Amino acid sequence: MPKVLITTVPFGDKNRYPLDLLEENNIDYVINPLGKKLTEDELAGMVDDFDVIVAGTEPITDKVMERASNLKMISRVGIGLDSVDLLAAEKRNIAVSYTPDAPSPAVAELTMGLMYSLLRHVHVSNIQLHRGEWHRYFGKRLVNCKIGLVGIGRIGSKVLRHLSGLGCTDILYNDINVQLEGDFAEMARFAEKEEIYREADIISLHVPLTAQTKNMITTTEIETMNKDAILINTSRGGIINEKDLYEALKKNRLASASIDVFEHEPYSGDLANLDNCLMTAHMGSMSIDCRTQMEIEATEEAVRFLMENRQESAVPDEEYEVQRQGL
Amino acid sequence: MPKVLITTVPFGDKNRYPLDLLEENNIDYVINPLGKKLTEDELAGMVDDFDVIVAGTEPITDKVMERASNLKMISRVGIGLDSVDLLAAEKRNIAVSYTPDAPSPAVAELTMGLMYSLLRHVHVSNIQLHRGEWHRYFGKRLVNCKIGLVGIGRIGSKVLRHLSGLGCTDILYNDINVQLEGDFAEMARFAEKEEIYREADIISLHVPLTAQTKNMITTTEIETMNKDAILINTSRGGIINEKDLYEALKKNRLASASIDVFEHEPYSGDLANLDNCLMTAHMGSMSIDCRTQMEIEATEEAVRFLMENRQESAVPDEEYEVQRQGL
Repeated sequence: MPKVLITTVPFGDKNRYPLDLLEENNIDYVINPLGKKLTEDELAGMVDDFDVIVAGTEPITDKVMERASNLKMISRVGIGLDSVDLLAAEKRNIAVSYTPDAPSPAVAELTMGLMYSLLRHVHVSNIQLHRGEWHRYFGKRLVNCKIGLVGIGRIGSKVLRHLSGLGCTDILYNDINVQLEGDFAEMARFAEKEEIYREADIISLHVPLTAQTKNMITTTEIETMNKDAILINTSRGGIINEKDLYEALKKNRLASASIDVFEHEPYSGDLANLDNCLMTAHMGSMSIDCRTQMEIEATEEAVRFLMENRQESAVPDEEYEVQRQGL
Repeated sequence: MPKVLITTVPFGDKNRYPLDLLEENNIDYVINPLGKKLTEDELAGMVDDFDVIVAGTEPITDKVMERASNLKMISRVGIGLDSVDLLAAEKRNIAVSYTPDAPSPAVAELTMGLMYSLLRHVHVSNIQLHRGEWHRYFGKRLVNCKIGLVGIGRIGSKVLRHLSGLGCTDILYNDINVQLEGDFAEMARFAEKEEIYREADIISLHVPLTAQTKNMITTTEIETMNKDAILINTSRGGIINEKDLYEALKKNRLASASIDVFEHEPYSGDLANLDNCLMTAHMGSMSIDCRTQMEIEATEEAVRFLMENRQESAVPDEEYEVQRQGL
């Protein structure tokens, strides 16, 4: 009987179908007993005799694979692959699949909400009112802002469509691969990252974590931004240097930031001491519909691999190439 | 030299033009020295010899007017008139003007942000992360929600346009005066309030405070709502009964609520003890552009009245009629 380790939690919580699917196919499974994002060591101590990992964002390194002598496949619940050592997997002939489309609508909507919250100081006023303090903050309207989107792939382009639907017209984008076409091309103008940092009122990141994007935003870049700019990261931790962001927010070098993703999760660090840092617990993909879709797709792919020895959503060669070049 | 009392604060903070305008016209002015929303007694003790009040939402009652022997005009910075006793003003031949259009874009955008925040538990996660707690919440996507707008006037219709621009198609509205026409009519369907309460995932209020809307939502109405519904009030305090809302949120009879307006402001009350109540300090109109526009329009109207004895934005008869019928 094949064995599947489900590391991402919660899983099967809002919709049992993925678990039913495993059971119907007589596939044994274990859901991460620690109930939190695993460290490399925790995962290495757990993978022993599993055939497939249905994975979250925990590190699946060469060391982990070394300890997983039966491992034949990794099925990522989500899009990011920074947590998976694809080259180690390739070397060991471990297949890797992912669910690139399912999370993006939920991440795009969360991003919209974070923009509005930061622009109107909703998070700060809420904390203050819960402390019994009353202060009325001035804010800005979204349609009056210059908005810079760094990364215009699956998620960035959805954010762009939302912004455009709301009447925003002053939008810049940057992407190392994608050039906007069709109706999208009329919604935003290409700009170098430096221009976005210098000009935008709102800077929102929608890039994967790679060697090129790690520490993409440090004190050097923040120093070029407007003092009343706001910065949003719903992509991956590590792209904004957390220490540098903390220093900038502490001395009000930036108006505020919203951070959904952290270098180490669960996060506990200095950003928690700043009212002007709006923080959420890696909840970008956590709408019931998108999360369910991701879990179903990743589980179906695992079942397909185990029962029929084929993949429908294998990680494409470009992703291996990205890792070959660096991370 | 005519004298103007500016009661609403902050005023002239982001743009001095309204103050310059008064000075250029040799109009003496005093800005509310208490720096907060005035009570009836505080205002009554202050109005003595002023010709015009450039007013916020503090109560301008018959008693206040009794003490304001020179008062000839009230120029409201904003749209709501529940704070002004229009019949007492009429009796004393005191003119009243307001700025009905200026605040609505800012209120509509804040409302959008509050919807997103509540749907994704942004406010709860932020408070928890600031306490060092990490919990990933499931949420819903806006486009999958049935949304009920109670009141579809200047603000409600702007919220509707935003929702439609984002791709929301399942929208109900109720209004005692307005029937949607043209392209608006395709965006939403008229429904009785009872249907909205019973069916909607998101209920957002955009009505004035009148005898008819005071305590419009009490335990009786909340009991008919879905247990996972969210409730938003960016219109006026008193429309939702605060005590009943507190009880409902405390026992999770509703998922959450977002309250920008309170019966008594500055607010200090029990809602502050609930994480699932997102609170802001009456900041609906507080975008820099809209607030500036409101201050300019209200000041220009005061100057026009004092220098040329005419009004361009007098409160219309219907508003007097509303008060004659009740409040």
